[in-house]
Amino acid sequence: MTFKERRGGITAAKGFRACGVHSGVKKAKKDLALVLSTLSANAAAVLTQNKVLAAPVLVTKEQLSRGHSVRALVVNSGNANACTGERGMADAWAMVRSTASALGLKEEEVLVSSTGVIGQFLPIELLTSAIRGSSSELSESGGTDAAEAIMTTDTFIKEYAVELSLGGVPVTIGGMAKGSGMIAPNMATMLAFVTTDAAVSQDALRAAIRDGAERSFNRISVDGDTSTNDMLAIFANGASGAPKIDAPAGKEYELFSGALEQVLIALAKMIVRDGEGATKFVEIEVSGAANEASAVKAARAIASSNLVKTAINGEDANWGRILAAVGNAGIEFDPSEVEICFGSVPILRRNYKINFSEEEAKKVLSQKEIRISVALNHGPGEARFWTCDLSKGYVDINANYRT
Amino acid sequence: MTFKERRGGITAAKGFRACGVHSGVKKAKKDLALVLSTLSANAAAVLTQNKVLAAPVLVTKEQLSRGHSVRALVVNSGNANACTGERGMADAWAMVRSTASALGLKEEEVLVSSTGVIGQFLPIELLTSAIRGSSSELSESGGTDAAEAIMTTDTFIKEYAVELSLGGVPVTIGGMAKGSGMIAPNMATMLAFVTTDAAVSQDALRAAIRDGAERSFNRISVDGDTSTNDMLAIFANGASGAPKIDAPAGKEYELFSGALEQVLIALAKMIVRDGEGATKFVEIEVSGAANEASAVKAARAIASSNLVKTAINGEDANWGRILAAVGNAGIEFDPSEVEICFGSVPILRRNYKINFSEEEAKKVLSQKEIRISVALNHGPGEARFWTCDLSKGYVDINANYRT
Repeated sequence: MTFKERRGGITAAKGFRACGVHSGVKKAKKDLALVLSTLSANAAAVLTQNKVLAAPVLVTKEQLSRGHSVRALVVNSGNANACTGERGMADAWAMVRSTASALGLKEEEVLVSSTGVIGQFLPIELLTSAIRGSSSELSESGGTDAAEAIMTTDTFIKEYAVELSLGGVPVTIGGMAKGSGMIAPNMATMLAFVTTDAAVSQDALRAAIRDGAERSFNRISVDGDTSTNDMLAIFANGASGAPKIDAPAGKEYELFSGALEQVLIALAKMIVRDGEGATKFVEIEVSGAANEASAVKAARAIASSNLVKTAINGEDANWGRILAAVGNAGIEFDPSEVEICFGSVPILRRNYKINFSEEEAKKVLSQKEIRISVALNHGPGEARFWTCDLSKGYVDINANYRT
Repeated sequence: MTFKERRGGITAAKGFRACGVHSGVKKAKKDLALVLSTLSANAAAVLTQNKVLAAPVLVTKEQLSRGHSVRALVVNSGNANACTGERGMADAWAMVRSTASALGLKEEEVLVSSTGVIGQFLPIELLTSAIRGSSSELSESGGTDAAEAIMTTDTFIKEYAVELSLGGVPVTIGGMAKGSGMIAPNMATMLAFVTTDAAVSQDALRAAIRDGAERSFNRISVDGDTSTNDMLAIFANGASGAPKIDAPAGKEYELFSGALEQVLIALAKMIVRDGEGATKFVEIEVSGAANEASAVKAARAIASSNLVKTAINGEDANWGRILAAVGNAGIEFDPSEVEICFGSVPILRRNYKINFSEEEAKKVLSQKEIRISVALNHGPGEARFWTCDLSKGYVDINANYRT
């Protein structure tokens, strides 16, 4: 089911205020976002799987491990506060403390996140001073400013929101994200923050964000690397007055997690569309795998293959690279049973039958949005995955950033 | 220990003859190689891990599964005979049969291999006719012609040989390889064939080629994809008269497998140097991992990271991407203990201390051959890995081959 889209992002839900300001980490652009819940909120997060954890990730992890409610989030861009040792930890805690102090909260009620250059210390005085000054900037219409303030090399602001009804009460879920921007020396950092005025127990929130991440941010691939700073967090404050979702089960939970998935997939797709040097957005649809996990493996293998991604860049109907990528996925299937379509044009049929018009295939591949469907004809497992092409622009951006 | 290099390749060892001819699969270039052992030889092979297996891989696998000795190898380039179903299998067997018949051998004594376009049927009449005609071309000086005949988009012929002494008798190990050439619709195929006049039991040969592959071809990365046709095979005919190596243990076996490893690493490095669009050859040296397997994982993660490979292309001393790649490797280590050098220039020291001259780093990175050393300071595990940069040339070659 598809939920009704509405305007806005991180402040679309009731009882959330935000702002995005310039603190001085970046030369001129907005680089500091604050988000405040007017009520106590439950929170949950999915943090990077990278073993190299930035200081703000460690601090947010510690804050969330205690299981208490939270009220605010502070995020800076322009500097990742990663690989900065003890001083980096002190700086991340200083961001938390200043935010708590500026907003009249307890320290334990604040989460922190950073993105940007790694291996450099934060200009912490600039940040804490800007945090102190920004409490008056918080507003219910500040979501877009906040979304702008977390951008690095993103070329557009990423926000999305949906409305649903829980027990007859309208509820909103909205969020903001930033994509795989590169700042040297660095890596691609993905940040996404979501707020909702639904009332959701921490257990249910944890399950929903974990499963939602699995079907959205874990199913996109720009260059396959995960960063020291990746973070997806959700805040649920109950301001809608809708009945509380107590456990990760039942009709209301399914509705909520379905709507959250729609928000997360929308934000994840925006990140792919803004992939560095990307000229094409590619949806990969795998069906007929032994199970969903196998379908995801096959789709990820296709989406991560440089050979496939360069062929798409060159608008080449290269089904052989797609089939070989599935062959590398480590799943069970019979290659002679595989069927591949580009858009609605069948390219490969069972028993390696190839009989397509290069012209028709070219027409599909010349578009900006391409769907590749791969039917393994081996079982009921399905998955979708989103990626972009690999272009000379990608090499340009990533080879020459510091020079 | 380093073994003495000598000239030649697949016919460097005693009792091997080879030729490389033009059959007509390719328009004008050599496209058919035959290798004959004048004595019965033991053989062993390492075949692709891809689930999509080309017909010649299936046939060679079947031939080797019986454990008998072999006499000959037939290889064509220009067409991979992959994704060709039953007709492809019949064609691969036809290549085996013609070779056996032309050389007066039993069918079970012939291995077969192909590389090139996938999804197209072999022009089998041209091939069998050329095979019949080529028996008179076989010679002890035909190794280089054979090495040329297995090339696809390779830009240079790849052969290498070493000499060693077993029980006081001089023994030679030599081989040829082809790299990751792209022919559409296709993927990167790696072929390598090695011959030796040592006498080696099949057990010992299997162990030596498996371990040797692990430390050579499994430690290179051009674009991370494995193909439907990848094959590494070795033939040992005992023509040197050296005492037989019966089991995969003991001093003579260690000598032999060490020399074989040198041959395989030399051929593997040539494949990297000839990587598509590669402008730089990169040796990655990981030390201080918990064990060798962890060191290999770390080195592979660095070598496979598009972010690292583009940074090297841009001659950017981007240690953050290297550290983050290790963080993605799924191994245990403490990021704050890591040290990174480019050539002999320390870039990152323990506790994230960064204090290097950009000028010195640039000097190292501007060279054609770059060594990146990563000390994890966590254990005794070491590994080397070889890769190339990711250039706009790679995108060019792979995006636009068919257009």
